[in-house]
Amino acid sequence: MGRTRIRHRGQRTGSQAASPLAHIPWQPISNHMPPLEYLRPDEVEKLHEASLRILETTGIAFMDAEALDIWEKAGATVDHQSEVVKIDRQQLLDLIAKAPSRFTWRARNPAKSMEIGGNRTTFAPQGGVVFVNDLDRGRRPGMMSDYNNFLKIQQQCNSLHFVGDQIIVPHDIPVSFRHLQRSQAAILHSDKCFMEAPHGRIIAADAVEMAKIVFQADVTQGDQPVLGGVINASSPLRYDERMIGGMLTYARARQVLIMTPFVLAGAMSPITMAAAIAQQNAEALAGIAFVQLVSPGSPVMYGGFATNLDMKTGGPAFGTPEGAWAMMVGAQMARRYKLPYRGSGSLNTSQTPDAQSAYETMWSIWPAVMAHTNFIMHAVGWLEGGLTVSYEKIIMDMENLAMLDHFFRPVPINDETLALDMIDMVGPGGHHLGTPHTQARYATEFYQSFLMDRQNFQTWQERGSEDTAVRANKVWKELLKTYEPPDLETAVSDELAAFVERRQRELEGVELYT
Amino acid sequence: MGRTRIRHRGQRTGSQAASPLAHIPWQPISNHMPPLEYLRPDEVEKLHEASLRILETTGIAFMDAEALDIWEKAGATVDHQSEVVKIDRQQLLDLIAKAPSRFTWRARNPAKSMEIGGNRTTFAPQGGVVFVNDLDRGRRPGMMSDYNNFLKIQQQCNSLHFVGDQIIVPHDIPVSFRHLQRSQAAILHSDKCFMEAPHGRIIAADAVEMAKIVFQADVTQGDQPVLGGVINASSPLRYDERMIGGMLTYARARQVLIMTPFVLAGAMSPITMAAAIAQQNAEALAGIAFVQLVSPGSPVMYGGFATNLDMKTGGPAFGTPEGAWAMMVGAQMARRYKLPYRGSGSLNTSQTPDAQSAYETMWSIWPAVMAHTNFIMHAVGWLEGGLTVSYEKIIMDMENLAMLDHFFRPVPINDETLALDMIDMVGPGGHHLGTPHTQARYATEFYQSFLMDRQNFQTWQERGSEDTAVRANKVWKELLKTYEPPDLETAVSDELAAFVERRQRELEGVELYT
Repeated sequence: MGRTRIRHRGQRTGSQAASPLAHIPWQPISNHMPPLEYLRPDEVEKLHEASLRILETTGIAFMDAEALDIWEKAGATVDHQSEVVKIDRQQLLDLIAKAPSRFTWRARNPAKSMEIGGNRTTFAPQGGVVFVNDLDRGRRPGMMSDYNNFLKIQQQCNSLHFVGDQIIVPHDIPVSFRHLQRSQAAILHSDKCFMEAPHGRIIAADAVEMAKIVFQADVTQGDQPVLGGVINASSPLRYDERMIGGMLTYARARQVLIMTPFVLAGAMSPITMAAAIAQQNAEALAGIAFVQLVSPGSPVMYGGFATNLDMKTGGPAFGTPEGAWAMMVGAQMARRYKLPYRGSGSLNTSQTPDAQSAYETMWSIWPAVMAHTNFIMHAVGWLEGGLTVSYEKIIMDMENLAMLDHFFRPVPINDETLALDMIDMVGPGGHHLGTPHTQARYATEFYQSFLMDRQNFQTWQERGSEDTAVRANKVWKELLKTYEPPDLETAVSDELAAFVERRQRELEGVELYT
Repeated sequence: MGRTRIRHRGQRTGSQAASPLAHIPWQPISNHMPPLEYLRPDEVEKLHEASLRILETTGIAFMDAEALDIWEKAGATVDHQSEVVKIDRQQLLDLIAKAPSRFTWRARNPAKSMEIGGNRTTFAPQGGVVFVNDLDRGRRPGMMSDYNNFLKIQQQCNSLHFVGDQIIVPHDIPVSFRHLQRSQAAILHSDKCFMEAPHGRIIAADAVEMAKIVFQADVTQGDQPVLGGVINASSPLRYDERMIGGMLTYARARQVLIMTPFVLAGAMSPITMAAAIAQQNAEALAGIAFVQLVSPGSPVMYGGFATNLDMKTGGPAFGTPEGAWAMMVGAQMARRYKLPYRGSGSLNTSQTPDAQSAYETMWSIWPAVMAHTNFIMHAVGWLEGGLTVSYEKIIMDMENLAMLDHFFRPVPINDETLALDMIDMVGPGGHHLGTPHTQARYATEFYQSFLMDRQNFQTWQERGSEDTAVRANKVWKELLKTYEPPDLETAVSDELAAFVERRQRELEGVELYT
């Protein structure tokens, strides 16, 4: 293409301090332990059977004329009045079988492309968030400056493998332009795999065009997608026009669709978790079958996002035993169909980055990881059931992700690491602090925390009794200082800018989906 | 015995408010999932081999003349000068094989007796703690009033299955009397399985005598122990006279010995985790073999408590990836020898009950539970690496234990819970809030939190922006009000009091182990 490879405009050079996260290696997780499975095989089959019956007898609404035509031509039973489609089990399973069980999601930096499927686990940031919160300014509607800050912070964390999508709603940008500015910012500020919300035909098509510019290629061919986003069923048993437009557009461009019903047991499904999962399974399978009908072999994920009502407030509860069960059972169902599985990480309902936020987060991310969840959305930052993202919580969760990365690194067991000669040399009652074996490894052997504080109480008190949130507040400010944009060819960023400018002119005043 | 069964002196009766924890059922965990296993079988064998070599070639010190005689008579190679015993692998494995793989630990309330082993998980409180901390009075040395408070709080939590031992050091009680007052308080305030520290011959023998009074029987016969405690190796490769006295006394009385090396990789062992676990395994096996030599078939547990140095402070780090690895690998080693496994729950190094304390705790208790740890010590309350117990952290961790209990309750999958008729009745786009299926189960279907706050942000703010610790502070105060002592025959409590009084006279001025 004749472009010279130059640094992006505005990139800092020289003697800048290193990022506090610079020591965390880029090392996506392969979990060699068998997945934790809660259900017996006969229970999996009961849920499977129930889902097939739901789709055959109750059916599922596809609230879009084009989608109904597609289903009708394929031989499904379509009621145009109610928009309900009833799908025969054989047709459904034949379609599901066309979806790939694993695929590569390419990043513009090839070293950061991600394998999706099998025993791989990847982490993606928060999505669909309305408010931001930090210790200095409190809670407020998100702005484009927050969007950019989150990109800069998250680009520096090698344990987060994706960027973009709706990491915060930028309220200061007109709705018609938001998707353009989101994607442009994600591409400029980060070289990781990027996401954009497939909300309707226009937004999704623009995202595909921007991906073509970034990769300077027709990315809609082949089987290595470069873009993806989350599709939610409007449970119970509905896909609306906004989602269907996105499904059609990404599917035809062979980009990643993450099919995720949001089933709140007791509200969007019967209150029993068995019913919630049977319905979730029906919804996910119907969506995936539709994508495969439109574009056989196109990459999809099976998403699980079921949880329970909170009995006191009537709102959703996250980080609960029921949510953990649903996360693990969802993974088992996805494996039943040989589909990559999407779960969630930092789910919690706390209003502040305190102990509750951490306990609930761990009730979400541990079952997700141990169940071999391939794509863990919302892996950082949530508060208030995802209504709010906290700058401090992002830092806390990043530490947790880095710990998970480290946990899954192989621990070699060999003569050198068993060090029986050292054990014999030191003998009963001695200590190993000064041995050559310890000295040689002291700086590198263990996970090195950037947030946890292990000073003794007196020292901690003398230094201001800073709790985790206060320390996290310092870390994200430091990260905004140490951020350096990744390389991007000027010709590409110029072309992107021109595209965004043209589309903003064209979309001025057009009502788009949020 | 002719005693009438009357309520204990001072027991409240009448219209007292119910405990905030009253709804948590007594339902010890059976984990029907296979244990999470990090190591391949050949790696387990490498660690096994390394441990046998350590005990054969380096040996382990038993710093007690009686113990050395016992080993010598059994044919081990004993060096009386260095107190080092070298144990032949066949003798070691023959002794290990005598230990029961599961047993029942009886409580004075038979309904609260616990099965130890197999896929059962049980939770025990914090132990060996010096300071207490609460939001009102801050951090201070523990007193007997704290000891009693913790007993009263923990008796009300059905997810905690044991009481007693050194849940806090009561600094206001002379060292010579502490064990007597600890055990008496544990017996009066709780009807659960009780623990007392087997620290030397005198303390251990007194505990056995008190157990005989409580059970009004010679509890030293048979295979159902009623008492137990933790033995720590003085790593590397030593058992000291304090621990050996306790081992001999409990073993001969056939009470439970929880053999737990504390290996801090890089200080008490080589820095590599493989070496830490090989050494831990050698120490645990040597201790268990000794117990079986003294009293074949006596109940023991294999304890794991290895973690890593914190590289910044040089102190122990808890709740780390290395600690999680060691917890799981320890469980695998214990299963290798068909021994019940003891791990730990609330391990953390935070100075305050904040997010760090919760993340680290979850990095300890999730791997412990998922690895089929049979006895989870320190399941509540830790701060500062176990130097301090926090009233508020106890409450937070109790909620977490109750959630774990709930998580392992079977989730039935049948026609009634699948509720396909309800899914069909509500149909696409409806909601399930008002259905008879939901209404009938609304109050009981889900885990009911007593600490998590899921109000919306505005309401939460209007009510004082209370974080988890502030809410936990209210809960423990409420629990001190709702506490009711369990039934105990007056004759038993009188006999106990007389024993304590006599022994305090006899031990006045005697120097005992702490």
